[in-house]
Amino acid sequence: MSYENYTSHLRKLADVNFANALLQWDQEVFMPEKGGAARASQQATLAGISHDLATAPELDTVVNELLAGNALDEKQRSNVERTAKDFAKRNKFSKEFVEEMSMAISAGFQAWQVAKKDNNYALFEPKLQKLIDLKRREVEIAGYEVHPYDALLDDYEPGTTSADIKAVFDDFKPRLKELLAKVFAAPKPDDSFFKQHFDKDTQWGFGLDLLKQMGYDFEAGRQDISAHPFTVSFGSGDVRVTTRVSESDLAEMIWSCIHEGGHALYEQGLPANDYGLPSGEAVSLAIHESQSRLWENNVGRSKGFWQFNYSRLQQLFPAQLGAVGLDSFYKAFNRVEPSLIRTSADELTYHFHIIIRFELELAMIEGSLQAKDLPEAWNAKYKEYLGIEVPAYSQGVLQDVHWSHGSMGYFSTYSLGSLYAAQFYAQAEKEVPGLEDAIAIGNTKPLLHWLQEKIYTKGRNLTSRQVCEMVTGKALDATCFIEYANKKYSDIYGF
Amino acid sequence: MSYENYTSHLRKLADVNFANALLQWDQEVFMPEKGGAARASQQATLAGISHDLATAPELDTVVNELLAGNALDEKQRSNVERTAKDFAKRNKFSKEFVEEMSMAISAGFQAWQVAKKDNNYALFEPKLQKLIDLKRREVEIAGYEVHPYDALLDDYEPGTTSADIKAVFDDFKPRLKELLAKVFAAPKPDDSFFKQHFDKDTQWGFGLDLLKQMGYDFEAGRQDISAHPFTVSFGSGDVRVTTRVSESDLAEMIWSCIHEGGHALYEQGLPANDYGLPSGEAVSLAIHESQSRLWENNVGRSKGFWQFNYSRLQQLFPAQLGAVGLDSFYKAFNRVEPSLIRTSADELTYHFHIIIRFELELAMIEGSLQAKDLPEAWNAKYKEYLGIEVPAYSQGVLQDVHWSHGSMGYFSTYSLGSLYAAQFYAQAEKEVPGLEDAIAIGNTKPLLHWLQEKIYTKGRNLTSRQVCEMVTGKALDATCFIEYANKKYSDIYGF
Repeated sequence: MSYENYTSHLRKLADVNFANALLQWDQEVFMPEKGGAARASQQATLAGISHDLATAPELDTVVNELLAGNALDEKQRSNVERTAKDFAKRNKFSKEFVEEMSMAISAGFQAWQVAKKDNNYALFEPKLQKLIDLKRREVEIAGYEVHPYDALLDDYEPGTTSADIKAVFDDFKPRLKELLAKVFAAPKPDDSFFKQHFDKDTQWGFGLDLLKQMGYDFEAGRQDISAHPFTVSFGSGDVRVTTRVSESDLAEMIWSCIHEGGHALYEQGLPANDYGLPSGEAVSLAIHESQSRLWENNVGRSKGFWQFNYSRLQQLFPAQLGAVGLDSFYKAFNRVEPSLIRTSADELTYHFHIIIRFELELAMIEGSLQAKDLPEAWNAKYKEYLGIEVPAYSQGVLQDVHWSHGSMGYFSTYSLGSLYAAQFYAQAEKEVPGLEDAIAIGNTKPLLHWLQEKIYTKGRNLTSRQVCEMVTGKALDATCFIEYANKKYSDIYGF
Repeated sequence: MSYENYTSHLRKLADVNFANALLQWDQEVFMPEKGGAARASQQATLAGISHDLATAPELDTVVNELLAGNALDEKQRSNVERTAKDFAKRNKFSKEFVEEMSMAISAGFQAWQVAKKDNNYALFEPKLQKLIDLKRREVEIAGYEVHPYDALLDDYEPGTTSADIKAVFDDFKPRLKELLAKVFAAPKPDDSFFKQHFDKDTQWGFGLDLLKQMGYDFEAGRQDISAHPFTVSFGSGDVRVTTRVSESDLAEMIWSCIHEGGHALYEQGLPANDYGLPSGEAVSLAIHESQSRLWENNVGRSKGFWQFNYSRLQQLFPAQLGAVGLDSFYKAFNRVEPSLIRTSADELTYHFHIIIRFELELAMIEGSLQAKDLPEAWNAKYKEYLGIEVPAYSQGVLQDVHWSHGSMGYFSTYSLGSLYAAQFYAQAEKEVPGLEDAIAIGNTKPLLHWLQEKIYTKGRNLTSRQVCEMVTGKALDATCFIEYANKKYSDIYGF
């Protein structure tokens, strides 16, 4: 058996997974409503074929033969080793368990949709409890060294443990609280002008221009409308983004467009020759999120970026923005305020939304929190961390889709992503000459080239910790984020 | 083993094929250009999985056990019998042969694209010869009773032989020639007003209205733009059409839209509960084409249809059509004229384009015509049947994609489809009370209901001959078409 046997098996697996991703993309973007039943069947079939390929005995054979021999170069060996680990983990789960989980997720997702719409937690509670129980079985099957939650993290953030995250958050929380106390003591900037009527097509055109300016390659992707913005890849030559345009809130399109664009630049920059191989895949969810957050926040919420772009936006919407100066605009989109909904939170209070979810997930996976007690725990934490009352399940514990999908252990990667972004961006500021000046004249190429070289070319054979140390010389901590936030918000809020 | 094992295997196969169809649809409609390489790999992988499922030993086992037992009702038995035949045929071909054919088709298609663009037949000739040789091997492997061509027809038109088609065409040709002689002797109606500027979006909206009027269900489909119009199904709940809009020729959009709509109505009307089973699939290519042609020609090129629709079209394009009366419009889109290009031919001379291709295909498959001699034979037949000289390969032998795809035995179904359409429509006129009056006030529902009952519910367990006899009480012949055409064109051309 040769390395070619191995790569052709993995590429076949990637083909099936990317085909399934197209089924999903199409469902969110273009599928007519009566196509749903057959589409569910098509997706389940491809998922089953994917599982069979990922756990095929012949893959095990070729991997073991290759690892026992000495024909592999360094990169090849790390690919095969990564696959051996994936295979071993995947193979711990019986087909019955995978199917039971899949059915529980379907039932959970359907119940969550209705429960959220009707603000009725009781509809969701038994399905969530079932998912919690299954996840607790899953971590026992998968195995872990210290904390059961680590087994879940291993799917999203290999090499990072719940103790690592706790350590980062424990350091981060008081520093963020201190900063927020200063922010909340100051008068809030006015952001009411965002909530006027903004024509959809004009917004759409502006969003496309932003993506182009970022270096998104429209010959290797496209943007469409969907209910929830997302990025999807079918190989680095076809990486698509979706966005949502609200005619009554300009902010929604702009920063979701930049956010997804950041994810997409990463996928477009992955090494095309390594299609289907670990070395051709993103490092981890947190590193992926670092790329979306870096563009959304460190670039897209900076003054320099809007020095170049704001006059164009004013020209497009003279009636709405003609009387609003750049400084007012900049302050408005950086307005900080405790709020109920994670996805529309500012970049500071956002982290408490995540920390709340992380702490609740830990308790659920430990077995100390049951589905029936979750709303109370949720509401108590929103009171504690953000000082707000939750008036309805739909704006509280039912707001996010993740748990209904069985995605526990996922939320923390959002905050980690922002912290990585700050640490990477601080490094870029040191290493890229004239970075800020270039951005202020609409030239984001120097930044993109730096990211391509430092991040995009790293594949899944490295952990996020390794990448972070390679790029910034140290492990992740909250310092860069706190320094960035202190500098920016003291300027905006004048403290 | 139960019937459930059988249906779940076939539904899985359908899932894979429909997923592959989505990859194809997306490629034609939305895929960015750099997505091509990975997409080709994804399609090849799904095609391979489909082949494996279609030839899986466990399918053979379940089919044989079911046929040996007596647990099946009549419909179940005919499904299983049909699958047994499909399986037996498919299994005659080695994986090596399938792959060799697949590679020859890829090479043929690529060479054809360049050859057509450059008007250079020599580029295509060796690839076509390879395909002819492979098709000749294919018919020997597949087997046949009388004529090698029958083995190819069996893929598209099971139960119909080349002798059947010859008999129909031999009767048809002189009657069509006689009619055409009268038409050509009369002055041609003016159709120059079609070649003005017609705004794309306005045309698009009109096309959507036509589809709605036909009864096309937009909750179970959508229309998009593609270079070549086509219909694709992912199950009867999601049947999509594409069209092409030319701003300098109004006719192109209108009748391609109605044509694809006819195909789509058939697919939307197939029994959804029989997803993936022969009883849930279309009868044959000719019956499929009969549905597109019936709507395009018998309905869409009738005066009654435009009595209702023309005033709306005039309102949309007052400058272009305001001075053109309904009668002139009707005559213009029924203008008959010998021409070089099949896809833009009128509904009468069209058949000679097909007969020419059918005769050439027979010769190629018999071995009496080689690729190197094809252009000469092609040009001679265009001279003989249509009285015209072919000035360039690109407007002659290189115009169609079919042969480059190895699709031989396919063309004849286009003419058969028109003849079936005429025979079905004549029957509908007898059986549906007030059919013409309803169409003349924009109500095509009675026709659609009749087609749903008589045609759409018939699956692939019947042959086209059986369906024709069930619906019209007799086998196919050209009489209904000739009668329809004589009546219509003698009125238009005044003979």
